Amino acid sequence: MSQQLRAPKGLYGVVVTDTRIAKSSSDGSLVYSGYGIQDLAENASFDEAAFLILEGRLPQKNELAEFENELKSQAKVPEAVYQVVRNLSPTAHPMDVLRTAVSALGAVDGPKDQRNQQLSLASKMATLVANCYRIMNDQKVLEPDTSLGFSENLLYMITGRIPTNFEAWVFERELMFYLEHDLNASSFTVRVVASTEADVYAAVTAGLAALKGPLHGGANENAMKMLLEIADPEKAERTVDEMLKRGEKVPGFGHRVYKKVDPRAQLSKKLLERLLSQEAKDNKLLKLCEKVESTMWERKKLPANLDFYAAPVFYTLGIPIQLYTPIFASSRVFGWISHYNEQLRDNKIIRPDAEYVGPKDLKYVPITER
Amino acid sequence: MSQQLRAPKGLYGVVVTDTRIAKSSSDGSLVYSGYGIQDLAENASFDEAAFLILEGRLPQKNELAEFENELKSQAKVPEAVYQVVRNLSPTAHPMDVLRTAVSALGAVDGPKDQRNQQLSLASKMATLVANCYRIMNDQKVLEPDTSLGFSENLLYMITGRIPTNFEAWVFERELMFYLEHDLNASSFTVRVVASTEADVYAAVTAGLAALKGPLHGGANENAMKMLLEIADPEKAERTVDEMLKRGEKVPGFGHRVYKKVDPRAQLSKKLLERLLSQEAKDNKLLKLCEKVESTMWERKKLPANLDFYAAPVFYTLGIPIQLYTPIFASSRVFGWISHYNEQLRDNKIIRPDAEYVGPKDLKYVPITER
Repeated sequence: MSQQLRAPKGLYGVVVTDTRIAKSSSDGSLVYSGYGIQDLAENASFDEAAFLILEGRLPQKNELAEFENELKSQAKVPEAVYQVVRNLSPTAHPMDVLRTAVSALGAVDGPKDQRNQQLSLASKMATLVANCYRIMNDQKVLEPDTSLGFSENLLYMITGRIPTNFEAWVFERELMFYLEHDLNASSFTVRVVASTEADVYAAVTAGLAALKGPLHGGANENAMKMLLEIADPEKAERTVDEMLKRGEKVPGFGHRVYKKVDPRAQLSKKLLERLLSQEAKDNKLLKLCEKVESTMWERKKLPANLDFYAAPVFYTLGIPIQLYTPIFASSRVFGWISHYNEQLRDNKIIRPDAEYVGPKDLKYVPITER
Repeated sequence: MSQQLRAPKGLYGVVVTDTRIAKSSSDGSLVYSGYGIQDLAENASFDEAAFLILEGRLPQKNELAEFENELKSQAKVPEAVYQVVRNLSPTAHPMDVLRTAVSALGAVDGPKDQRNQQLSLASKMATLVANCYRIMNDQKVLEPDTSLGFSENLLYMITGRIPTNFEAWVFERELMFYLEHDLNASSFTVRVVASTEADVYAAVTAGLAALKGPLHGGANENAMKMLLEIADPEKAERTVDEMLKRGEKVPGFGHRVYKKVDPRAQLSKKLLERLLSQEAKDNKLLKLCEKVESTMWERKKLPANLDFYAAPVFYTLGIPIQLYTPIFASSRVFGWISHYNEQLRDNKIIRPDAEYVGPKDLKYVPITER
């Protein structure tokens, strides 16, 4: 084939599609459909940002009310899906459980129109994030509290306690930072599956499969485990040096796009500061983070990414570490759905080529003669 | 980014990797690790071909025995997975059910070494293909019969009857044709998920999600439904013309790679001939197929693909139509696993770029002022 093009490994630097959803840039900016992440973090609600990611524009007042009502009215998960979860091994990986639950939802949820189906999936996924954890840890399922907003309700179902307004506000910002990040591996997976015209449950199930990979999701959990292990800011420099010496990856550092600064990490850091001072906690955790951050910059010129500073925020909010990646997914699902829709608006099945470099012209010989 | 490359839509004609697994060519040849599909269809067993796809070479006698024993010893599916399936809606799509069952298996199957885990998955998937159907149709689960070989056992679990040697041989050829086909959308999905270092259950779950899409799997079922609807060879030409006039896709025709002949379709056609004559059935079904095939070639210059001729073979073997795509998956899983391994042997996370063409430099305004 003479028109064949050889792509760099990992499709690095290869533009595979146009997008109107979001743009991250190496200069440290992140834009959701035209709005900078700092602007949104300061002024918007999660629901507004989620609407923006799905629709490409901020909602009018009545549209936002309708959107929020739809999410609320769809939040309850059918009992059959919980039964599925109860049959899984109690030691199963939380992302395996969530993926199975979402896949099951696609085999249980009744027929709906496309938009209804998508909001049902996004809304129920948050409920599943909290309740899969509850079931695996022998806690009672908590039904969503429809008097609460989307992110407030998720935090409530996780902790079992109605959060303060300030806690809910902080958590909402973190969810906003995880909403969307152009063509990461899971969003690209969603687009490949969408390109076969499979339904949105199938595509999101595949996105969850990709997010499980340690090279993609999971860094926020590992960052927190590392911070807890170091514990003392005085030990941070030495521990990081030892990790680097052993050739270990320091979780929460480096990013394919952001080479100097991940804007979401810096916003999260400010949230951590405010959260610790508001709750009158000492700032040892912040100092520890800063020490790890400065050491990594000095030694490797790698900036902290979102995962590194979201982890201590989640921790301070009392969220179990196992839930950090599922929470990532509960927000990113809006981005995945938007990629699903964008792929289908101008679709061609995604089917690249491979160059065959294996053996040629072999002839079968009977097994006794091999 | 100055080194950015713009890829054609659908990554059409873009080489994203080297492969040693298989090669399909527009001249109508298909090679599995050096061996032509005709050669294998004539001489090899399915198990030999599956070993070839996984290992890149034909097995020695003791290796084959060991491989077959491993597949047999792993065939039984844990009861917990059947419980998961029992909780799904009886009207669910068979591919949704299979995907959920395989995802659940990943959250149930105990820790194993990599090879063991992969053979467990492949072996149990065949058992699940048959028994998910049984459960959804209120039939009793049939445990695998370990006195039978892999493909014979699958046909037994589907029909509930030990097949004749000839039936088993025919079915085995069909499975062989579905084993592998380089970078189709599901295999590429598997590689994208593998590139995040997610486990093989996650990757295969994502492959199943992609195979559900009507642009990928499903054509064999639709081909059979069309053949049953036409029923009479005399009506074939007129019906095809009417479908084309209405702008409908005729299922089982055309292929991204094979422009003149799909070698697997021609091999399947010969199997259909032999099967009909062996079972002393009239050859109306064959004549019907040939009439549709010749009409499509005359009108559109599109060749019949594997799905078109696998369908009537499955039908004549007494296999329920709903199972055609799951059967495809039960064979292709060996190809998926091989792609999973090949991706990880020289891995870089697959993360392409998108070109942002959305709005720019917007500033948040309060909702009351929009």
